[in-house]
Amino acid sequence: MEKNLPPATVERLSNYRRKLKGINTEETAYIHSHQLAHLMRINPAHIRRDLMLINFSGDIHKGYNIENLIAKIGENIDCIRKQKLAFIGIGDLGRALASEFKNKDSKLEIVAAFRLEENLNDESVDFKCYPISKIKQVLKKEEIDIIVLTLTKINLKEVLKNIVDSGVKGILNFTSAHLDVPDEIYVENYDMIGKLEKLSYFTSCKD
Amino acid sequence: MEKNLPPATVERLSNYRRKLKGINTEETAYIHSHQLAHLMRINPAHIRRDLMLINFSGDIHKGYNIENLIAKIGENIDCIRKQKLAFIGIGDLGRALASEFKNKDSKLEIVAAFRLEENLNDESVDFKCYPISKIKQVLKKEEIDIIVLTLTKINLKEVLKNIVDSGVKGILNFTSAHLDVPDEIYVENYDMIGKLEKLSYFTSCKD
Repeated sequence: MEKNLPPATVERLSNYRRKLKGINTEETAYIHSHQLAHLMRINPAHIRRDLMLINFSGDIHKGYNIENLIAKIGENIDCIRKQKLAFIGIGDLGRALASEFKNKDSKLEIVAAFRLEENLNDESVDFKCYPISKIKQVLKKEEIDIIVLTLTKINLKEVLKNIVDSGVKGILNFTSAHLDVPDEIYVENYDMIGKLEKLSYFTSCKD
Repeated sequence: MEKNLPPATVERLSNYRRKLKGINTEETAYIHSHQLAHLMRINPAHIRRDLMLINFSGDIHKGYNIENLIAKIGENIDCIRKQKLAFIGIGDLGRALASEFKNKDSKLEIVAAFRLEENLNDESVDFKCYPISKIKQVLKKEEIDIIVLTLTKINLKEVLKNIVDSGVKGILNFTSAHLDVPDEIYVENYDMIGKLEKLSYFTSCKD
C-alpha cells in the first residue's frame, strides 16, 4: 500500500476517529459530515474531501455509518503490526499517552522511556524507564520504531547516532535542536519555545 | 502597540532570535539573510519578509547586525513585564523549558506546576509543584498569564472554570480535549496523538 495520503489528512483522520469513538453508536449509528465538522470545529468540506481520499461514502439521507468509518480509517492509517514508541524524557503527558494507547486498542505502544536519573522506575506505568546511558542497548533490543524527544540536556550527537544505528523510523522532536539525521527518518518538529513566545505576544500587556 | 504581526511571523522571529543568540558575535557581527536561512533551514524570502514587518534592514554588503537584530526582535515580540507560566502536568520538557527561560534572560517564567500527586516537590527546579486541588488559590495568588496543559486525568470543566476566573490569557493545550473558554483566551492546540499516528503512517511497514 502506498503512502499517498497528505500528512494533514492523516492527522485529521486520526482525530476524526478519536472523536467518533467517543460517540455511543447504540444511540446514534450514523453521523452527517456537518455534524462531525461541528464536533471537530472544522469545515465540513475538509471532512468530505478527507473521506473521499479513503474512498468512504455515506448514505445520502443517514450520513456516514460510524462503526464502518472507524474501521475504514484504521485500514487506511494504521500499521499492520504494532509500532513501538520510546520517550527520551518523560512526564505526565507521556504517561497519559501510554494509558490512552493501552485502553484504545491502538497500534501504537509506549515501551520505554529514557531519563537522566539512574533510579527512576515509576510504578504507575507499564513501560520501563532506563537511564539515557542505556539507550544503545535498549533501542536495539526493543526494536523501537518511533522516538519522542523531550529531553534537552543530553549528548545529542551521540543519542542521534544510536537512534539512527538502531533503525528508528520517525522522531517527534520537542527540543529546539535541529536533528541531523538521514532523510529516511521522518522528523516532525515542534518548537515549544516558539509557540510560547507567540502566545506571550498575543496575550501580552502592550496594547 | 498593536498586535499586527502574523502568528507565523512571531513564531519565526522567536526562532531566529534563539538561533542568533547562539552565534559568537565577537567573531561574526553580521549575518546575511541567506546564511540565517541556511541555519534555520527555511527560505531566505521568509526571513526578509519577516524582518521587513518589524522594519529591520541590513547593510547591503555586510548583512544584518546580529546584536541589533536580537534587540529589535525583543522590542517587537516581548512583553514589557515578565509573563508567568504554569504547567498543569509536568515532566522533563517542562523542566528543560524552565531552565531555558531562566538562563536566557527571557520574559517568560515558569512559576508553578500542578500535578495529581499530593507529595511532589522536586528539588531540581525553581518553581513550586502543587496538587491540582490547589489550582484555584495558586492561579489567583501567582497571577498566572499562560497555562501549558499536559495532564488529562483531571476534572477539565472545573479546571477551566478556575483558569477563566483567575484571568489567565493564553493556553497551550497538549490534550485532545476541546477547551471551551471565552474568545479572550488565546488557545493554541497541539494534538500529540494525531501527530504520532501521522508519524506511524509515514514510517509504517505497509509498503
